[in-house]
Amino acid sequence: MKFSIERAALLDAVSQAQAVVERRNTIPILANVLMKADGDGVSFKATDLDIEVIDTAVAQVEQAGGTTVSAVLFHEIVRKLPDGALVQLREDQAQGRLEVTAGRSHFSLATLDEQDFPVMASSDYAANFSCKGSVLRRLFDKTRFAISTEETRYYLNGVYMHVAETGDGQMLRAVATDGHRLARVDAPLPKDAEGMPGVIVPRKTVDQVRKLLSDDDAEIAVSVSETKIRFATPAITLTSKVIDGTFPDYARVIPSGNTREMKVDAADFAKAVDRVATVSSERSRAVKLSLDEDRLTLSVNAPDSGAAEEELAVAYSDEKLEIGFNAKYLQEIAAQVDRENAVFLFNDAGDPTLMREGDDQSAIYVVMPMRV
Amino acid sequence: MKFSIERAALLDAVSQAQAVVERRNTIPILANVLMKADGDGVSFKATDLDIEVIDTAVAQVEQAGGTTVSAVLFHEIVRKLPDGALVQLREDQAQGRLEVTAGRSHFSLATLDEQDFPVMASSDYAANFSCKGSVLRRLFDKTRFAISTEETRYYLNGVYMHVAETGDGQMLRAVATDGHRLARVDAPLPKDAEGMPGVIVPRKTVDQVRKLLSDDDAEIAVSVSETKIRFATPAITLTSKVIDGTFPDYARVIPSGNTREMKVDAADFAKAVDRVATVSSERSRAVKLSLDEDRLTLSVNAPDSGAAEEELAVAYSDEKLEIGFNAKYLQEIAAQVDRENAVFLFNDAGDPTLMREGDDQSAIYVVMPMRV
Repeated sequence: MKFSIERAALLDAVSQAQAVVERRNTIPILANVLMKADGDGVSFKATDLDIEVIDTAVAQVEQAGGTTVSAVLFHEIVRKLPDGALVQLREDQAQGRLEVTAGRSHFSLATLDEQDFPVMASSDYAANFSCKGSVLRRLFDKTRFAISTEETRYYLNGVYMHVAETGDGQMLRAVATDGHRLARVDAPLPKDAEGMPGVIVPRKTVDQVRKLLSDDDAEIAVSVSETKIRFATPAITLTSKVIDGTFPDYARVIPSGNTREMKVDAADFAKAVDRVATVSSERSRAVKLSLDEDRLTLSVNAPDSGAAEEELAVAYSDEKLEIGFNAKYLQEIAAQVDRENAVFLFNDAGDPTLMREGDDQSAIYVVMPMRV
Repeated sequence: MKFSIERAALLDAVSQAQAVVERRNTIPILANVLMKADGDGVSFKATDLDIEVIDTAVAQVEQAGGTTVSAVLFHEIVRKLPDGALVQLREDQAQGRLEVTAGRSHFSLATLDEQDFPVMASSDYAANFSCKGSVLRRLFDKTRFAISTEETRYYLNGVYMHVAETGDGQMLRAVATDGHRLARVDAPLPKDAEGMPGVIVPRKTVDQVRKLLSDDDAEIAVSVSETKIRFATPAITLTSKVIDGTFPDYARVIPSGNTREMKVDAADFAKAVDRVATVSSERSRAVKLSLDEDRLTLSVNAPDSGAAEEELAVAYSDEKLEIGFNAKYLQEIAAQVDRENAVFLFNDAGDPTLMREGDDQSAIYVVMPMRV
């Protein structure tokens, strides 16, 4: 294998691949990136056995071939090379080394045989469709915070993507919950996505895919089977196993009878919650909301450190209500509100509360109260 | 106690004080900041028993008095208050609370009696002089990296400031070393500083003083005794114990007979060292320098990961030399070079090497070689 490539193109391609590599590996070759040169391009592949990323770049290939080197080390070296450098790579099979040359810098890196690099089993995808980067990003960004980190509830460790029947027809829906709060975000169903099975996309995959979605207008090719999901741009293909479990019947926990409506500026609300929560103890983080005619009082009482109280002007015309929440949960859902007011729908102090952005029904959030 | 103050002025004053407070305290009151209102001002005092900071600010004082509250909590609250807010503070002695009000936010914070706040013993200062902020900053910034972190060698855990006799007359000198490298920086001796005893300024004090020196032209009042050093701006006074120990006779380790001179662009040198060190193992970080007629070759050989080599154009006309160093040490001393070339003076592969910036003798660095 022998090829040369611009440092910037190489760095782009390797960055994406090395991000998937786990820092601690019991299987040495999982720390490596597999590079293959052929025709007028080179591909870089990395995997953690659950996710596989293949990134391609244009290169001047003198001799086709492939080998594997430490992904982190190779990425570090490329990152430190001067901008604009032309990088020459050559495999020395006899020595088991990859020779990397750029200007007056020369590196000789230990390789492992490409034959030993794990191959992810191929999958028959039940649905193949195309989706704008901005749409996928919204689905993931607005649900990600609610993904559970409890490993025992592994079926909650991801975003449940599926086709949902709604009053407005079929939707592509993303749902995440950790039992304390839930996020449900809808997007118009892309063409050809009807047959897509519901899948739980793991947190790490959500984070990796997120990096492919920097260009809003890019069309992402999505393929879904019962066991895998694949996202592809012209240069990058990310294939991930999905979580083998059943996502709970989330519709049951979304309240439908909440009628006490409060409208509040989301940014003011988040800041006020942040301020009063300062005095709360590390553990409880409980904030009490007291609602009265067009007035919200946020309060925290922590015997050790003190008390805090703040009033906010809101739109509220129902009867008085006192209800407690975890401050962090309130701040996280308030942070999802992009433009409009946050609309909270309460029932009673012991019941789950609903939040949405203005009149937009395409993204709703549920948060469980806590006793204060 | 009752006073009101602009949020920005309050934040400035409290930031400086709370930075001194240790995050873990066995004595509860050490977590607190002591505020005292009197006349037309308020002062904030914090201490870790080794360093004491007093910061003053203008305030509208309605009732003189003093109390203490958690420094971290109070700082957090002030930080989160909206910019431009007027903050009202009132002590409720009966309840043992400090009432803090700003706009519609209200906080009630637990207090501890000001009588219990530790007082640092006063000192008879042997020297009182004035020094430009930029001068002190240079002395500390260029020596700080060489301070030892080994607690057993406590007398190396700071910067040794003292009056030194040189060929150019008396100088104010700062020296730090950890046994592997040494930094020695001189500044013209300020008026009235002749009688200053040599003191070892602890690392934490160096870091805290550094924050007072943002304004280059500000005159800092410095007072030094055998046991304490004090730095004061019009608003802030920082008093610190100095390390009770004897700084070693550093002059002995500064080589005087090194004649093999190499001139190199410091930035290029640091980048090249960084690149070749990428392949070195976490533990050794050894880089070999091979010198020949106007050419420096940096190389690293790590059996596990591979090898790296880079050539640099330098000015060197002495005989061939091979010498090894810890990559981190080389990068840290190269980072001290501001404008000019780095000038290295070698003797032999086993001897300490000297570095200075161009022809400037006022800052020199010594680094021990390692076997490669």
